[in-house]
Amino acid sequence: MNVMLRGRARHYRSVSFDTRTNSVRLIEQRLLPHQFKVVETHDYRDTAGAIHDMIVRGAPAIAATAAYGLAQGARAFRGQDLRAFTRHIAKVGQVIRSARPTAVDPVNAMYQVRARMNTGNTVAERQSLALAAAADFAEASAAECRAIGEKGEKLIHDGMRILTHCNAGWLACVDFGTATAPLYVAQERGRRFHVFCDETRPRCQGATLAAWELAQQGVSHQVIADNAAGHLMQRGEIDLVIVGSDRTLGRTGEVANKIGTYTKAVLAARHRIPFYVALPLSTFDWELKRGRDIPIEERGEEEVLGAWGVIASPKSEGQRPKPRERTYVRVANPTSGARNPGFDVTPPELVTGLITPVGIFKPGELWANRRALGCVA
Amino acid sequence: MNVMLRGRARHYRSVSFDTRTNSVRLIEQRLLPHQFKVVETHDYRDTAGAIHDMIVRGAPAIAATAAYGLAQGARAFRGQDLRAFTRHIAKVGQVIRSARPTAVDPVNAMYQVRARMNTGNTVAERQSLALAAAADFAEASAAECRAIGEKGEKLIHDGMRILTHCNAGWLACVDFGTATAPLYVAQERGRRFHVFCDETRPRCQGATLAAWELAQQGVSHQVIADNAAGHLMQRGEIDLVIVGSDRTLGRTGEVANKIGTYTKAVLAARHRIPFYVALPLSTFDWELKRGRDIPIEERGEEEVLGAWGVIASPKSEGQRPKPRERTYVRVANPTSGARNPGFDVTPPELVTGLITPVGIFKPGELWANRRALGCVA
Repeated sequence: MNVMLRGRARHYRSVSFDTRTNSVRLIEQRLLPHQFKVVETHDYRDTAGAIHDMIVRGAPAIAATAAYGLAQGARAFRGQDLRAFTRHIAKVGQVIRSARPTAVDPVNAMYQVRARMNTGNTVAERQSLALAAAADFAEASAAECRAIGEKGEKLIHDGMRILTHCNAGWLACVDFGTATAPLYVAQERGRRFHVFCDETRPRCQGATLAAWELAQQGVSHQVIADNAAGHLMQRGEIDLVIVGSDRTLGRTGEVANKIGTYTKAVLAARHRIPFYVALPLSTFDWELKRGRDIPIEERGEEEVLGAWGVIASPKSEGQRPKPRERTYVRVANPTSGARNPGFDVTPPELVTGLITPVGIFKPGELWANRRALGCVA
Repeated sequence: MNVMLRGRARHYRSVSFDTRTNSVRLIEQRLLPHQFKVVETHDYRDTAGAIHDMIVRGAPAIAATAAYGLAQGARAFRGQDLRAFTRHIAKVGQVIRSARPTAVDPVNAMYQVRARMNTGNTVAERQSLALAAAADFAEASAAECRAIGEKGEKLIHDGMRILTHCNAGWLACVDFGTATAPLYVAQERGRRFHVFCDETRPRCQGATLAAWELAQQGVSHQVIADNAAGHLMQRGEIDLVIVGSDRTLGRTGEVANKIGTYTKAVLAARHRIPFYVALPLSTFDWELKRGRDIPIEERGEEEVLGAWGVIASPKSEGQRPKPRERTYVRVANPTSGARNPGFDVTPPELVTGLITPVGIFKPGELWANRRALGCVA
């Protein structure tokens, strides 16, 4: 998607590859929205480090990074000994996998790269196939998000006011994003609308990343406190809600997503506002039978008790550590603790539809369409 | 209520008066929760300044401050000329009133002081009556909050988990607070319970003031993101909600309160969790016929786009401007704007009951009981 640099829009993907220098290019997401910077990793160990340090984040984005990282490692191999090459690849895979050990997407992505690579007969062939497979993986990932946009764009009419929660945007994917894809495609087709971004406490991905993305695309938007959506709905100022998902149960239609999603779904139902969830096929869980069995991560207290931002008061200007560097401030009473559940589960009766790359489904239609939705069990 | 100073609990009111030095004592609320300090104003102009600068905030607290300020001004008058004294009092009233020109409570409080003062025949008598009237006003205000606590404490059982929103606590009143009063009385009677404080973005009065108050009283509590309450209710971890009110319509039972209150009421209704509003009689509006006619203040964008806190990361320790001084950080994307409605309106069907100093009423019972609830029209 676009990034505005010195007043001009330039196209970027969150992850790309430079074949000339054998390096992975990543948007340094930890500096956003206050600073835009692209970093290059020249060695697969640095690529693994970038995943570990969350320079790149979001399941589809780290999957593509891992795929490129494996190809990068393969291409760095010197010699023609196929057995030594295979040992080398095993090591590369191990290093990248251990960068985010609980994430399954990088593992699946590298599996795809390896399978294709192994059809080659020489080291040189395999190196070449690894890169082609990684590039295809990234391309397919972007295309899947684009397809979510194509299927979902028809929900967005001229003049609509749309609520989003958190950021299921292109930064977390290779391109387009999930919840944002319908917005971007609708905008491309000339429709004009306004987006309210829930700031999404405690980590504020709505105020930071979603707002940054929309600003780069020139989409009209405003940040709101998570508390404000109910009031805006009550006053008839929201027409549609689109959110992403971290896990959606194919058997029940229950949607796990960033904390606060459930609240927005309850409010939308009360005000008869359509509530849509956009997601790629990899987000469906076809195994789990009950939403309450989804483990809800309890995160650190400091996220709730404070906030990260750039010191901005004119008064403190002199003390700025570095321009646009983020500082943590403790907001809450210093002797109080916090609870910090990271996700919640929205029941199917509150979900109007699920926007997938193959079409829009009601929560009750998922299981019957499981083959089309990629269930292989 | 209590304030812990060097490990020992000391009793404070948010507003008090020192007759010896003719000064008003105020808790410097702008420094809380990071610093506790009592300031004294020795002149009515400084007292007006303290109201204007929000050293003291909350309708009942500024009303008592205005009452004391008027007495302070009266007592500073030198001479016996009753006409000169009356002109002086008019000026004092004008200066204090203009400190927060839209607030009606200071005006009503000073009206009471003046009425009683004017029963005196000499300057000395009137000076003495002014102070007595101001002290009685503050005492009655504290007693009214205490009565809210007495009426509401029976709702709170051992082991309950109670959600609060914003801070309708003793700092905003003279003592006890409104939404907090039932908690403090229940605690006094030996009941043990746990409070979840909504942080209450954008100004975070829950994370700062409510959490500070509860910590001083030794009430078990945790701060949560505003997004988390729905999830906790869904998991059966909240038994009761108590909030305050900025204006409640006596004719309809609609409750205007801090933004986000409506959302909590909708969630509570869905989960069949009792939702109570605690308020003094002065908060009833017996005139307005429809909640949607209540003006909703749109506040500045900077509240939503950032946060105030104390720089706390070890890394930035060196740059601290002053220990425990608050700094504003810009959290959101720097090129994005915000919407910031300050209040919302909760419809009566979501309100289980209104805890008043004279008893607990259902929203539909208010009008029939309007005489008991102080309606004089």
